[in-house]
Amino acid sequence: MSILETINNCNDIKKLNINELKTLSNELRDLIIETTRLNGGHLASNLGTVDLIVALFYVFDFNKDKIIFDVGHQSYAYKILTDRFKNFSTLRTEGGISGFPDSFESNYDAFSSGHAGTSISASLGYCFSRDYLNQNYYVVNMVGDASFFNGENLEAITYSDKKPNDFIVIFNDNGMSIDKNTNAFYKVVSKVTTTKKYNSFNNFLGRTIGKCFIGKMLMRFKLFLKRSLTLNTFIDSLGLKYVGVFDGHDIKTLIKILNNVKQSKNATFLHIKTKKGKGYNEAEENSSKFHGVSANLEKSNNYFSNNVSQIMCKLKEKTPNLVAITAGMKDGVGLTDFAKIHASSFVDVGIAEECSITLAGGMAKGGLKPIVFIYSTFLQRGYDQILHDICMQNLPVVICIDRAGFVGSDGKTHQGLFDVSFLSHLPNLTIFAPKNISEFEVMLELAIKLNSPVCIRYPNGEKIALETTETINEQLSWEYVNKGKNNTILAVGPRMNELALKVLNEVKDINVINARTIKPLDAKILLEIKNTNVITLEENVKQGGFGAMVLNFYKENNHNTNVNIVAVKDDFINHASIHSQLISNGFTLENIKKLLI
Amino acid sequence: MSILETINNCNDIKKLNINELKTLSNELRDLIIETTRLNGGHLASNLGTVDLIVALFYVFDFNKDKIIFDVGHQSYAYKILTDRFKNFSTLRTEGGISGFPDSFESNYDAFSSGHAGTSISASLGYCFSRDYLNQNYYVVNMVGDASFFNGENLEAITYSDKKPNDFIVIFNDNGMSIDKNTNAFYKVVSKVTTTKKYNSFNNFLGRTIGKCFIGKMLMRFKLFLKRSLTLNTFIDSLGLKYVGVFDGHDIKTLIKILNNVKQSKNATFLHIKTKKGKGYNEAEENSSKFHGVSANLEKSNNYFSNNVSQIMCKLKEKTPNLVAITAGMKDGVGLTDFAKIHASSFVDVGIAEECSITLAGGMAKGGLKPIVFIYSTFLQRGYDQILHDICMQNLPVVICIDRAGFVGSDGKTHQGLFDVSFLSHLPNLTIFAPKNISEFEVMLELAIKLNSPVCIRYPNGEKIALETTETINEQLSWEYVNKGKNNTILAVGPRMNELALKVLNEVKDINVINARTIKPLDAKILLEIKNTNVITLEENVKQGGFGAMVLNFYKENNHNTNVNIVAVKDDFINHASIHSQLISNGFTLENIKKLLI
Repeated sequence: MSILETINNCNDIKKLNINELKTLSNELRDLIIETTRLNGGHLASNLGTVDLIVALFYVFDFNKDKIIFDVGHQSYAYKILTDRFKNFSTLRTEGGISGFPDSFESNYDAFSSGHAGTSISASLGYCFSRDYLNQNYYVVNMVGDASFFNGENLEAITYSDKKPNDFIVIFNDNGMSIDKNTNAFYKVVSKVTTTKKYNSFNNFLGRTIGKCFIGKMLMRFKLFLKRSLTLNTFIDSLGLKYVGVFDGHDIKTLIKILNNVKQSKNATFLHIKTKKGKGYNEAEENSSKFHGVSANLEKSNNYFSNNVSQIMCKLKEKTPNLVAITAGMKDGVGLTDFAKIHASSFVDVGIAEECSITLAGGMAKGGLKPIVFIYSTFLQRGYDQILHDICMQNLPVVICIDRAGFVGSDGKTHQGLFDVSFLSHLPNLTIFAPKNISEFEVMLELAIKLNSPVCIRYPNGEKIALETTETINEQLSWEYVNKGKNNTILAVGPRMNELALKVLNEVKDINVINARTIKPLDAKILLEIKNTNVITLEENVKQGGFGAMVLNFYKENNHNTNVNIVAVKDDFINHASIHSQLISNGFTLENIKKLLI
Repeated sequence: MSILETINNCNDIKKLNINELKTLSNELRDLIIETTRLNGGHLASNLGTVDLIVALFYVFDFNKDKIIFDVGHQSYAYKILTDRFKNFSTLRTEGGISGFPDSFESNYDAFSSGHAGTSISASLGYCFSRDYLNQNYYVVNMVGDASFFNGENLEAITYSDKKPNDFIVIFNDNGMSIDKNTNAFYKVVSKVTTTKKYNSFNNFLGRTIGKCFIGKMLMRFKLFLKRSLTLNTFIDSLGLKYVGVFDGHDIKTLIKILNNVKQSKNATFLHIKTKKGKGYNEAEENSSKFHGVSANLEKSNNYFSNNVSQIMCKLKEKTPNLVAITAGMKDGVGLTDFAKIHASSFVDVGIAEECSITLAGGMAKGGLKPIVFIYSTFLQRGYDQILHDICMQNLPVVICIDRAGFVGSDGKTHQGLFDVSFLSHLPNLTIFAPKNISEFEVMLELAIKLNSPVCIRYPNGEKIALETTETINEQLSWEYVNKGKNNTILAVGPRMNELALKVLNEVKDINVINARTIKPLDAKILLEIKNTNVITLEENVKQGGFGAMVLNFYKENNHNTNVNIVAVKDDFINHASIHSQLISNGFTLENIKKLLI
């Protein structure tokens, strides 16, 4: 019987000896590797925190204490050790365990997460409540992978220099953002240990200098020095006691330190070093590649992002002033090769989505052609920047929105199902939705020519073979895939165009139109089809989406066209296969056929 | 002839002697006081930066150099000294000068602003472009009033520890956020000057200690000390050379320092102290009150916010666990008195909108009843937090959205015309829009009872007398203000209800309905009126707004109801009176009458 199987309540871990704890860690790692091999997931980040999480269970009581994960892609071991061991094999599958903390999944998950930067605000909120209500529990705030340096975390950790007791920020320093960490604060935090030098000098002073005048002066100076260093130490200034740096894989030491911290009750910043991918050789060596993996430990095979670098390199030839920007997603959005070849035309600001958008705005004002690559879900962070900095000044910034639509097993925190709704009401903005990579390429070039803000949204997932018959040009017209009678399907994006073709294949003689510009709509085509039964297909929620725009177009033009809007339901869509998410939201052949007249 | 009148090009300032520069400053201050007395505006913050701006013109050439203001409420003197002296009397009036930097107003305004936190990203974008294109200009980044500590600025200043040359961040330290500054980083920056102590000790060492062994050791230690202090100094770690603290009203010294900085070419952080409201006694003494003033230097008379504290104090009696949160807008949202009376139930996180929302989420999870008060325009910063942290977990957080609708003379950067569009597509969210303060009070209480996320939007501006006949209850039903035939007006918020009453007054016999819940819609009433001609009135853009929801409701329920959506046009709405903004967007008696059948 494995040790894991003996854990009925998470406090059972407290009964284990150090060797058993180590064995438990190894069992956890094996289970995580095995499960992500089958189901995909965040392998490297989760392997890195196993030992730390085991130590945390030894010291804290998560039946009452709270742990709040930043991003949450380090929480697998925590899930297994609380109440999800038995069904961990369902990780990231429909109806199974989520890949991120989810307060609806288990009461042990104190705060749902998936985006970076929320944990310190949430933790401080918990602490405020606890102290206000005179309750008694500890709040453990686990931050890593450079998410500490996201603007929201920086807002939270700095808004006051007073911090609550019984609160620990564990800075899991694996030297990495999703990509490499180049953050200035990170460098400061890494250097906090220079105070060790002060300590050794201090000891030296005590040993060697007598009670002479110079000695006394030195002792007084020592006090001043200590004060100065303290004053100037970044972490202390935030009202946290800095403790570090410790090996995040040394369970015995971690337990000792965590116990000390707990007993002190002081708000503490614990700095530990871990190895991303620990225990899985290939992942240790290439942790960026293994940050998120698909089933069979393959890197995600995303049709659009896989082609991004090649297209960008071609475009760079024609557009010397082109610059690519990303916010900690270089590999994910497919810019790895571009960044190598055109290093001076590439900027990764780290997990700082707000900054990435306004930075592009400044570059555009300065005469460059900036293109921001970002996931739909993370662009939610840049909403105000697109509105206030880019659209309001009508700046020529292009935003390539990756993972727009259903994302599958990453689930509700990562769905790209809101971008049309939060973008379509912005003045001056053009929104494209290519159905294939050649259309994406033409659109990107066109976007630069438009000299105004442009978003291009495209999904993740594998290639769907869709041929283009009419290349988009400056008229931004939609594409007739088929001309027919009575019914019209307006399809946005690859999967919706694929679905439309399936319908066409069965029923023939309908209009199938690739609605590749969401804003502006193609008024000419909309008027041509005004007497048909119109069906709109989009991977976005209904309110504020494409179908709503079409409905409103006909209303404004006083046409009584029947518009059937097929869109995502007004809910958060859990993890499942993309296929299944499509079906459960009504994107099926049968369902669309029912709407035909 | 005043000196101001002799300035034809901003470089003419370079010809003035120090006494003339001081006179110029006084003339500028007089003009700013006089103009804001008539037109309203940001008096105290703009008075504080006059001397600094005069010194900047003496040293830099803004015909090529760029200045980027954070928030931009300190830019009046800059506007006057570039090309807007002659029409400065039109400040904040329709067709006149904007109260914020506006790149469409003048080429001298390098980057439009109005929200906090955008300037460092924009400045770094400019620098990147300049260096990429081998151009030659200086980028001056002016940050003050605690906006430096907004998350976006922190993201920008920290994403790399390398900073461009010919770049200066001027930290205008007036000790203030919009309210008082309690930020931990602020305290660090204020303490950077402790390095002065190091310098004096350094001199002391040089003078007193000979070339003995101890002396040599001390000298070596001095080097270590210098390095340690440098390593640990916050600003240095960001790749900026710290220079400060200087009196921001001492023009002569400022010129000297700015010249040194300019000649050094190093990326620099210049810390100056200014007095908010400088030169206007009453404003110096009460700068928070005079932060933004209406015409005649009166504090804004906002019907809703003026009643917030009283209502919150009453509610606090019934709801002991109620906590109020704001993000640097205590006075503006009307929480001043509440914060005094219930200090331990009030949190101001400073200009950190993202943090304010997630913090409330943590508090709600911890068992409190948090209510966030924020302006509509600034809530744009919290879009992802409402979605990902609040709505996704269905947390009982109430957000009171002040300044929702037209804001008048603050203009396009501050309009509250998007919130319905960026909120209405969020699952689990309820959105209220009271027409008067008694309805607001009932809604606030109801919102707490709903135990799920609720937004309550209400405008600024003076009281509109509107009586409530049917108090809202847990059914969230709309209110029939009048029952009639053929036509129905669905009005959202006070000004729209007022307009509806004007129409009723002329035409009689129409349905007038106070559509006080935007989400969910009142399906019962919508079905009752389905055979009438429906007119929706809302202070929000059309796409994604209330009218669009009504249109979609009838579509979904297969009713062919005629819905006339009267909403704000798809554009950024410039400064003018609210009255004028209403008219230019079609909210007139004549216009609505035309829509009746």
